Amino acid sequence: MTTDSILNMGLIGAGRIGRVHAENIATRIRSARITAVADIDAAAAQEAASRWGTGHATTDYEAILHDPDIDAVAICSPTNTHAHLITEAAAAGKHIFCEKPIDFNLEIIDTALAAVERAGVKLMIGFNRRFDANFRKVREMVASGKIGQPHILRITSRDPAPPPIDYIKLSGGLFLDMTIHDLDMARFLMGSEVEEVYATGNVLVDAAIGEAGDIDTAILTLKFANGAIGAIDNSRQAVYGYDQRVEVFGSAGSVAVTNNRPDTHVYADASGVHRAKPLHFFLERYKDAYAAEMEAFVNAIRDDTPPPVSGFDGRVAVLIGLAAQKSYRENRPVRLDELEIAP
Amino acid sequence: MTTDSILNMGLIGAGRIGRVHAENIATRIRSARITAVADIDAAAAQEAASRWGTGHATTDYEAILHDPDIDAVAICSPTNTHAHLITEAAAAGKHIFCEKPIDFNLEIIDTALAAVERAGVKLMIGFNRRFDANFRKVREMVASGKIGQPHILRITSRDPAPPPIDYIKLSGGLFLDMTIHDLDMARFLMGSEVEEVYATGNVLVDAAIGEAGDIDTAILTLKFANGAIGAIDNSRQAVYGYDQRVEVFGSAGSVAVTNNRPDTHVYADASGVHRAKPLHFFLERYKDAYAAEMEAFVNAIRDDTPPPVSGFDGRVAVLIGLAAQKSYRENRPVRLDELEIAP
Amino acid sequence: MTTDSILNMGLIGAGRIGRVHAENIATRIRSARITAVADIDAAAAQEAASRWGTGHATTDYEAILHDPDIDAVAICSPTNTHAHLITEAAAAGKHIFCEKPIDFNLEIIDTALAAVERAGVKLMIGFNRRFDANFRKVREMVASGKIGQPHILRITSRDPAPPPIDYIKLSGGLFLDMTIHDLDMARFLMGSEVEEVYATGNVLVDAAIGEAGDIDTAILTLKFANGAIGAIDNSRQAVYGYDQRVEVFGSAGSVAVTNNRPDTHVYADASGVHRAKPLHFFLERYKDAYAAEMEAFVNAIRDDTPPPVSGFDGRVAVLIGLAAQKSYRENRPVRLDELEIAP
Amino acid sequence: MTTDSILNMGLIGAGRIGRVHAENIATRIRSARITAVADIDAAAAQEAASRWGTGHATTDYEAILHDPDIDAVAICSPTNTHAHLITEAAAAGKHIFCEKPIDFNLEIIDTALAAVERAGVKLMIGFNRRFDANFRKVREMVASGKIGQPHILRITSRDPAPPPIDYIKLSGGLFLDMTIHDLDMARFLMGSEVEEVYATGNVLVDAAIGEAGDIDTAILTLKFANGAIGAIDNSRQAVYGYDQRVEVFGSAGSVAVTNNRPDTHVYADASGVHRAKPLHFFLERYKDAYAAEMEAFVNAIRDDTPPPVSGFDGRVAVLIGLAAQKSYRENRPVRLDELEIAP
Repeated sequence: MTTDSILNMGLIGAGRIGRVHAENIATRIRSARITAVADIDAAAAQEAASRWGTGHATTDYEAILHDPDIDAVAICSPTNTHAHLITEAAAAGKHIFCEKPIDFNLEIIDTALAAVERAGVKLMIGFNRRFDANFRKVREMVASGKIGQPHILRITSRDPAPPPIDYIKLSGGLFLDMTIHDLDMARFLMGSEVEEVYATGNVLVDAAIGEAGDIDTAILTLKFANGAIGAIDNSRQAVYGYDQRVEVFGSAGSVAVTNNRPDTHVYADASGVHRAKPLHFFLERYKDAYAAEMEAFVNAIRDDTPPPVSGFDGRVAVLIGLAAQKSYRENRPVRLDELEIAP
Repeated sequence: MTTDSILNMGLIGAGRIGRVHAENIATRIRSARITAVADIDAAAAQEAASRWGTGHATTDYEAILHDPDIDAVAICSPTNTHAHLITEAAAAGKHIFCEKPIDFNLEIIDTALAAVERAGVKLMIGFNRRFDANFRKVREMVASGKIGQPHILRITSRDPAPPPIDYIKLSGGLFLDMTIHDLDMARFLMGSEVEEVYATGNVLVDAAIGEAGDIDTAILTLKFANGAIGAIDNSRQAVYGYDQRVEVFGSAGSVAVTNNRPDTHVYADASGVHRAKPLHFFLERYKDAYAAEMEAFVNAIRDDTPPPVSGFDGRVAVLIGLAAQKSYRENRPVRLDELEIAP
Repeated sequence: MTTDSILNMGLIGAGRIGRVHAENIATRIRSARITAVADIDAAAAQEAASRWGTGHATTDYEAILHDPDIDAVAICSPTNTHAHLITEAAAAGKHIFCEKPIDFNLEIIDTALAAVERAGVKLMIGFNRRFDANFRKVREMVASGKIGQPHILRITSRDPAPPPIDYIKLSGGLFLDMTIHDLDMARFLMGSEVEEVYATGNVLVDAAIGEAGDIDTAILTLKFANGAIGAIDNSRQAVYGYDQRVEVFGSAGSVAVTNNRPDTHVYADASGVHRAKPLHFFLERYKDAYAAEMEAFVNAIRDDTPPPVSGFDGRVAVLIGLAAQKSYRENRPVRLDELEIAP
Repeated sequence: MTTDSILNMGLIGAGRIGRVHAENIATRIRSARITAVADIDAAAAQEAASRWGTGHATTDYEAILHDPDIDAVAICSPTNTHAHLITEAAAAGKHIFCEKPIDFNLEIIDTALAAVERAGVKLMIGFNRRFDANFRKVREMVASGKIGQPHILRITSRDPAPPPIDYIKLSGGLFLDMTIHDLDMARFLMGSEVEEVYATGNVLVDAAIGEAGDIDTAILTLKFANGAIGAIDNSRQAVYGYDQRVEVFGSAGSVAVTNNRPDTHVYADASGVHRAKPLHFFLERYKDAYAAEMEAFVNAIRDDTPPPVSGFDGRVAVLIGLAAQKSYRENRPVRLDELEIAP
């Protein structure tokens, strides 16, 4: 691909998140286009291909991998297919954008990352929140020294409503499904690695979540390599909407971001002063972040620079999630190096 | 045009605002496309046509008006050409989107509106702020009775920096160039007509503006048909950025909207607590409003419904602006009916 | 009175505002005490004297004026007695704190101020809002040049509910009863004199107010000697509570203050995000301001410095109020010098 | 003491916090007075007695305990004297207000509480924050069910600057000196007991604090009997001032309170939008809370009702603090029952 040419992309998986990426590529990224869509649901593939692509649809993702005109793929299929698809796509010489998480198993992840390494293709993991204007601003202020040395990180991350129980069962559990975003955010904002995690939680939102072997409410404590400490709180259900806030506190000050709202109205009546709830969920809140994320991927290929969220980043988030899971189960702090695979 | 077909639009004027509309039509409105661009600057026409249209460019707007495949035009040329172009486009049977103001002269406006009336085409005037999420919310709450009977309207509208003096000279003056948006907003939010205006102002920002015969700072008092009263304050220069706030206060409460910011960060350091300035100017602040505005025009044609900002709306805003100008010059309240052309 | 001694004060008028001052003197001002209370209602006088003073009560204010141990008086009786009491107290050599307004008649005011001048006593007028932390901060930032040259002043001043109609009838009208505080605030914040005023208004809250010859909703435009302009909006009824906000906008920035609330809570539920209404009315909102005001009076006597709100200040606020009244009645801008008494 | 009589109080300890209480009793609590002050520093005792009391000062606290006219004592001496003074005051039949903490040793605390029990006097512990308008509002909303079942508690509590190292050495450590307030707040707000705590922390503010055997930055995770979980973060130094925020999140919503500021001003200039820092430290922030606290103590005696902060409350806060200390030292979650003294 030359700087002036258009990147041809194949979309693998035309579900909810796949369609978000397809629309962004079609309408907001001038230097890329969708030239093929694969989904086991032929109708879904066709609809996405017609709407946002050049019309080419297939139920066979291999057709995309073997298409010599395709430069890159966006893997938006279920989690359990990610690592395999990464490996195959790398072998086929395609650059890869893959939704999080890569997998729940570190060995499987490492196998996929090794394939990427061997093939010399680019891999970017979809931690979309890094591209949100609020979180970017926090990172920028921390990185520029505005708050001095970081001491304390606080993340509040709560969904508006729990997913269906069937989803919960396959989700990998709260820490690997939901907290994983916050774990990546923690590393991103602090610019320091997590060394130890303590996780506690409970089933407070819906007993069915407990019956499915998961929890719905959690608090994690993180210790960072630079000496800082952090706390994350999660809930599967904030009745007032998607709650996404962070604060980094340091020796020279603090920077915090709060939720985005649909408008700035303030309504005062005899009962009080009222304003709008936060934007309802991730599709609304991270609308622009998804577009910026995909653009960053496309730019990294065009400019031959490292993608801003690496396979290593994808792996570490899973590693911390697994440590959190172990911590919760054993009710003790767990160091990440406990989980590393012996050579 | 059938419901399923794509509306073919011709863009007349490929300057700053013309390009905003062209980009929105190209990237955000699926049911319309730019099939021709006219500008006396051939290069500007060609660039816009290539980037957002089908590539057809011309220096002769008549080519657009006579193109039978074109359903509608967007008039984005200088103000002094608006009325003439409306008249011609109407005669050619094209639906018309026209930037504000129609003209500074009521007789000329009336001639153009009569042509539209005769031709039976649709005309929409570009008061983009009506499509901003904040102001829509205020209108919605006023219209639904949430604040009871409206008593007081307050509008603060300040630009980040004055335009060049050469622009000022041709602008029609503060009231017709800048305040006109607030005058339309006043009618829109209150759902009642302005009957009288008192305007005062001064040259406080830049003496050169005074030398050009204009003022840069103003306060207007409005009296509405429903008995409510309102105040607008304007400045050509708010050093902290584009300041666009309104409040409607009524018998059952108040609703106010404030500025949009690029992010929600709050930074606390030893010197205080700080957050971002408002979005810098109208292109940033009203980015989504411009897209929603054009979509509303396209939908009105597709659904054969009245456009949400009529020629009458465009005329009344100018009428109030002219009354404000007279009020300022004579330092007395001026009733709108003083300015109406005798039959 | 020496620096170390306690100032002996007589309270004339033990109504609502008189009791506020008495309590402040008793509990918050160490260098003054109430040694006598006069009120035509003997029980009210006695109660205030027992509760906050040394127990001495009278129905005859002259007893206070002739008491050689009394250094100063606080005049908190009805408005129509102010000027007369000032004159007598001055003649008796007492320092004077007097509630606003001095009178509604400029000649009567001038007679009282001349008496003060002749006697060489100190007179301070009770514009309590000047001592509010919010408004002091605005004044401080304007005075220190933080906003550059002031260009625009905006004052929103709305009461939670109208007073009884019987009060309205004797109040002097909206401009002299309610707006007068804002007129003083305008001069205080801007550090420049008002030269012209345009006032408009209506009866929107309660028809009975109109029947009593008054209005309940108003907007005033002010022109200042320094070229700046200002707008004040008033309502007798904000259902959400006492609304007291100002903004001063200038060449280098803007400073605004908003309402005080009883607590900072933010409550988010499925219906929205909610917080407390403003403090209900002036007794709550200006609680600390009243104490600071009286302390400033006591300090001015102790330190022999000019009181921070002079008789001149009291006169000018009435003058602007009268001009506003004339402006409203004649529906035209009125210059203040139109109202000055010819020599 | 009858309902109408004045409560005679003896102040033991005329240091910083003793003077706060003395001033409040003297100026803001009508039904109590200071009739004696004891301090080993005779001058301090005398000054406080003259300023806020009836003038009686002593260096011997026993004089207060044996004074038959004294109804109650306020123990404001160093922590290591608290338990002993409580025991003696109880034996002397005095009601007792005692500053927190009672002691750092549970056995010593239990001995003191047993003495109170035997004597049948009232004991209230000085957890002043319970009387702050913000925290009261949160408690009120949680108690009334506004947020449904509480799920997550978050407390941010940061001091503006660390105390002197000599103070740190005797302070009992961060958890018992500073966090103890938050531990009481946690119980107060949630209305449920803490069962387990996990504490982590570090020396990030000042190495000298580490050399003194303490930490200056901490995060605690709490598990409550009702299944809820909570996180507290502490720092000895927030350069922007005293940071005191809490949030309780539950099944039906969330309530949060933030810091109080000296005024509401918002200043916008070319560099951003700025407002005031939080009130600097506890004397400013909890000014009204201290007065309300002492009034609650006086009322409990007058009305013969249980004081709102009991000896049990004082003991439990220390118990959780000790558990936190153990948790931090052993880097594991610690259940409170591990620390209970065997019968």
